[in-house]
Amino acid sequence: MSLSFRVAARDGSARTGVLTTPHAAVETPAFLPVGTQGSVKGLDPQELTAMGARMLLANTYHLYLRPGAGVVRRLGGLHRFMQWPGGILTDSGGFQILSLSSLRQVDDQGVVFRSHLDGSLHALTPEGAVAIQEELGADIITVLDECLPYPVEEARAADSVRRTLDWARRCRESHRTDQALFAIVQGAAFPRLRRRCAEELAALDFPGYAVGGLSVGEPKELTWEVLGETTAHLPPEKPRYLMGVGEPADLLAGVATGVDLFDCVLPTRLGRHGMLLTARGRLSVRSARFAQDASPPDPDCGCTVCRRFSRAYLRHLFRSGELLGPRLASQHNVYFLLRLMAQARDAIRAGSLAEFTGSFLARYRENAWRKGCVT
Amino acid sequence: MSLSFRVAARDGSARTGVLTTPHAAVETPAFLPVGTQGSVKGLDPQELTAMGARMLLANTYHLYLRPGAGVVRRLGGLHRFMQWPGGILTDSGGFQILSLSSLRQVDDQGVVFRSHLDGSLHALTPEGAVAIQEELGADIITVLDECLPYPVEEARAADSVRRTLDWARRCRESHRTDQALFAIVQGAAFPRLRRRCAEELAALDFPGYAVGGLSVGEPKELTWEVLGETTAHLPPEKPRYLMGVGEPADLLAGVATGVDLFDCVLPTRLGRHGMLLTARGRLSVRSARFAQDASPPDPDCGCTVCRRFSRAYLRHLFRSGELLGPRLASQHNVYFLLRLMAQARDAIRAGSLAEFTGSFLARYRENAWRKGCVT
Repeated sequence: MSLSFRVAARDGSARTGVLTTPHAAVETPAFLPVGTQGSVKGLDPQELTAMGARMLLANTYHLYLRPGAGVVRRLGGLHRFMQWPGGILTDSGGFQILSLSSLRQVDDQGVVFRSHLDGSLHALTPEGAVAIQEELGADIITVLDECLPYPVEEARAADSVRRTLDWARRCRESHRTDQALFAIVQGAAFPRLRRRCAEELAALDFPGYAVGGLSVGEPKELTWEVLGETTAHLPPEKPRYLMGVGEPADLLAGVATGVDLFDCVLPTRLGRHGMLLTARGRLSVRSARFAQDASPPDPDCGCTVCRRFSRAYLRHLFRSGELLGPRLASQHNVYFLLRLMAQARDAIRAGSLAEFTGSFLARYRENAWRKGCVT
Repeated sequence: MSLSFRVAARDGSARTGVLTTPHAAVETPAFLPVGTQGSVKGLDPQELTAMGARMLLANTYHLYLRPGAGVVRRLGGLHRFMQWPGGILTDSGGFQILSLSSLRQVDDQGVVFRSHLDGSLHALTPEGAVAIQEELGADIITVLDECLPYPVEEARAADSVRRTLDWARRCRESHRTDQALFAIVQGAAFPRLRRRCAEELAALDFPGYAVGGLSVGEPKELTWEVLGETTAHLPPEKPRYLMGVGEPADLLAGVATGVDLFDCVLPTRLGRHGMLLTARGRLSVRSARFAQDASPPDPDCGCTVCRRFSRAYLRHLFRSGELLGPRLASQHNVYFLLRLMAQARDAIRAGSLAEFTGSFLARYRENAWRKGCVT
């Protein structure tokens, strides 16, 4: 298995370390920008490298439908296809099948779904999900899981955990490459089910564990309760990956709970809409009050956007429908989350994660932009 | 006047030299990428510098309407606003008033037009056009001209030349900064009128001369006839700028006629639609036959796109609606035209412009992509 994980320091349940794969040495906790369709929207891989990204997530569901896993394989695999020299993690498609496709039918055998692109019918088994990810060629691949909506009845969730465990075993058995196969803990918002799922998967000794099916609409307190009950029963020496989480406050809560990897489309999605993540909260750069504002978008940021351009220019780009606007805003936002993770790693090493989180969130949540008291 | 122009070598009517402004030393003949609204669509100024662009064109009409010339001035001028360290040339708005605005009314005093953005009414005089461009702060600014459609009657064109000459004088008189003010030769497709306009403007001793009102629908042979009759009567020691021309064949024809500067939205507009300029003609990267093509977009190109990405990946980006597609295609296309001008300069120095043009066009026009005979 081409993956190693070394924890270098701990602070409460939080830890910092290095995850090493064939393409990357990733300092953890780490945020993985998302290249849904083989591209982090609007950004060049060279920019991602320059700003310190070492691993990306790509979506199996999307790449399987277009351009097709066989096409990616014949073109040399995903790293070569998208010219990304760092690490790649692919999800299994379970979440996108839940959220995007219509006519979903799940049974113990696998999933039948219709493509959101052309309505075509597809059957995906655990073995098939692994085979597709082997063709894509990421450093880390994931088992097929059943991702449930919120809320859901406990009996349904229990049956889904049974199925997810069964599928995890089948994925492991069919897996042939030296890609690291991560299991995915499910169990909806039921701590008891999460614990059982985590313990049984831990016994199967996967090289890493993803936590799926959270941030699907449940209250935040429940997210952290369920996550805590999950990570507490995962092997401490294995990396943990919380899927689909990227809000600054959620990243820090995840870090405190002992999560090592995160991914989210948030920074690029917000960026495309002119929303900037800053140390003082979200800033909507389209706002008229920035029309003549020569200040950098985020005065606390050292990214290549904030070091050069003004709020007034970014506002102008968005008002004028210029492609450069979404690009620069996405670039800043990805940098912001990468830097937040670097600060969290420093804080863990210094034993001051709680203080860092407290002071970061106080400033972030004050949201000085909304109040209009920042000049 | 902060502009100097030195011709270093000639080849027939063509010449190569250096145009120096406060922000740039531009080797001529040069292609100026267009930053219509203060941004070369999809590209970062740093990329333009890296690929050798030394001067951009920006549109007075667009920037006057949004964000407003006063806003740009208060934010430190256009160079600072858009973070472009090189030279900038602004047109006067005459062409956009012709092509974009409704309810245009031209008399000797100036132009009244409605904004294409919100229908608001604006009056622009020659003095106003200069004042706006002084606020924008480009290295080179241009006189207000009346740009006529094709075809047009000679009497109408003659009257327009009279007006354009009058406006040129008024612009010169009202001009106060050390920006270089270029005159614009008009005269529709009538060689006689073009010659008169060129001679009278030459007598006024402007630091440079633009040729406007060409490539507005007239047959190509007429374009070159009219252009030749124009440049022949412009002072040889002054730079000449052919407005709005960017097709490779047209650039080379312009160079042969003695033009020094060109601008065009062509490379970024084509790029946004997935059309690549290559040495073998235009390549539509969306074509299904590139679906599994691992070759670089243009095998003859050394740009940062062609050195890394495959045709299959570019096709995938366009099919998937990824922002990176238009960005990469635009980047390649701008590079292609910058390189074409560098090759033309080399050819002029070597006295082989005709041979270079002949062999370039033979290959370009063969359009191997369309025939499907390139692998």
